[in-house]
Amino acid sequence: MSQAEDSRDALGILQQDSRLLADYFKQILSRYPDAPPRLMESIEYSLMAGGKRLRPALVLECCRACGGDRQALTSALASAAAMELIHTFSLVHDDLPAMDNDDLRRGRPTNHKVFGDAMAILAGDAMTTMAFQVLATDTAAPVAAALVRELSSASGPEGMIGGQVLDMEGENISLSLEQLQRLHRMKTGALLKASCRMGAIAAGANEKQLSAVTDYGRHLGLAFQIVDDVLDVTSTPEQMGKATGKDAAKGKNTYPVLLGLDPSKREAAIQLQAGIQALAPLGPAADGLRSLARFVVEREN
Amino acid sequence: MSQAEDSRDALGILQQDSRLLADYFKQILSRYPDAPPRLMESIEYSLMAGGKRLRPALVLECCRACGGDRQALTSALASAAAMELIHTFSLVHDDLPAMDNDDLRRGRPTNHKVFGDAMAILAGDAMTTMAFQVLATDTAAPVAAALVRELSSASGPEGMIGGQVLDMEGENISLSLEQLQRLHRMKTGALLKASCRMGAIAAGANEKQLSAVTDYGRHLGLAFQIVDDVLDVTSTPEQMGKATGKDAAKGKNTYPVLLGLDPSKREAAIQLQAGIQALAPLGPAADGLRSLARFVVEREN
Repeated sequence: MSQAEDSRDALGILQQDSRLLADYFKQILSRYPDAPPRLMESIEYSLMAGGKRLRPALVLECCRACGGDRQALTSALASAAAMELIHTFSLVHDDLPAMDNDDLRRGRPTNHKVFGDAMAILAGDAMTTMAFQVLATDTAAPVAAALVRELSSASGPEGMIGGQVLDMEGENISLSLEQLQRLHRMKTGALLKASCRMGAIAAGANEKQLSAVTDYGRHLGLAFQIVDDVLDVTSTPEQMGKATGKDAAKGKNTYPVLLGLDPSKREAAIQLQAGIQALAPLGPAADGLRSLARFVVEREN
Repeated sequence: MSQAEDSRDALGILQQDSRLLADYFKQILSRYPDAPPRLMESIEYSLMAGGKRLRPALVLECCRACGGDRQALTSALASAAAMELIHTFSLVHDDLPAMDNDDLRRGRPTNHKVFGDAMAILAGDAMTTMAFQVLATDTAAPVAAALVRELSSASGPEGMIGGQVLDMEGENISLSLEQLQRLHRMKTGALLKASCRMGAIAAGANEKQLSAVTDYGRHLGLAFQIVDDVLDVTSTPEQMGKATGKDAAKGKNTYPVLLGLDPSKREAAIQLQAGIQALAPLGPAADGLRSLARFVVEREN
């Protein structure tokens, strides 16, 4: 399969799953008729801003790759929404003046620039509780608790939030490659891996399948972050929809700084291959996941 | 039973349950050996600061009042911890400069004064994910999802967080009594009612029992908030362990402002009686809940 076809496949998957998710988000947002309207506007503003929706696509594709039936896909869609709610909350809080102080996100003013700092904090908080509510409400009973465990542990002190703390503490301090990898394994890797695992859990996957998507998710997470660091150096703000060159300006540790630009690109390619190799036990059912992995490494924003 | 005896009973319950909870929190905090130490310090600082632990006691007492056995009490303890994690996260975020900008909480500097705004935001975020993690990990399988639903819906856009938005939006605007009641039903009432319901759910309560503690929790929540408003007028910062007189200074809507001080106290007494009446179907098993209700209305901080 040529690169162009691959890329079209990945884009097709992302677009199809984005549409599924957008419809579902509209339905979720309509479940809170008694909530303060301005709060719901603030949540909707960030939730419906688009983005690649990579994590939800990973959840849904991993469910499909593990042979999930129609009911499994319902649980996977709820998991995909919960995952995107957590990811979006983290962006809203990350952009706050007390944190990264960013004005631009996905080509638009950040949440706190539009709704104020207090509302952005509360909207982020609300998205977290909504994530667990949708998981406990819309997934099948036998997998609900396992999905809550997966998402909460990937988001918490040893996952995404812990990684954000390491990121903050690491500014203007030189990290070793091992420390940088730990930071990213927590900050971005944990949610990407959990996306894959939640799809498999929703599908009722066996140990072999769960292990395959877990390995795939781990390599993909690493590749994703390396490419993210590389793009911060090589892209324009127009391409990215957010400020670029900020890592260097803030004295952040990145792969290009530690390894150099070309070795970073090579490392991303190695992780891509390892991720694709991990999918071997799943056969052709995992072709969508293979396309998504290539897309992650070859993307330009 | 005299007031003094009642009050001793309630204090006995609160002290006993606080000890149970403190031991359990220590165990929960030890589950994150790979988290950044400073994050865990920040979480521990606010979580172990004490406070009355009213919500956890309500969870545990409602479980006992509904005849919960030993296994049920294990689920109730996990629910109590999850509830207190959510309550504590809300205090940490509420105290932030972008929100209420408070320097003092439970007699000590607020979290952000000690750890900085960014860490306080992240510690609050982490406490939320930890709450749902403990619920999904330490409760019995048949009740886990129901408990997650209860806690998440009580915390979210139509519960506590929605109430905080209404509170913020209502500053320097005169609210009607109905609007004020709605605000408090969401901001503080939702978690207090959910505490009661989670205890009953953990116990495997029947419809009649669940309905009794739900009514009790609703009246208690209203009484609690009226007394809180009254104490902000009549108490000293030393008694409260936090700044007082701030409601008036910030132009917040309170019961004393809308009704006057004495009618507010009478309304609290009416809610207390209604709450105690709701417990009738539970018989003597609910004596602890009766004591807690009297304590809530008669407390001085």
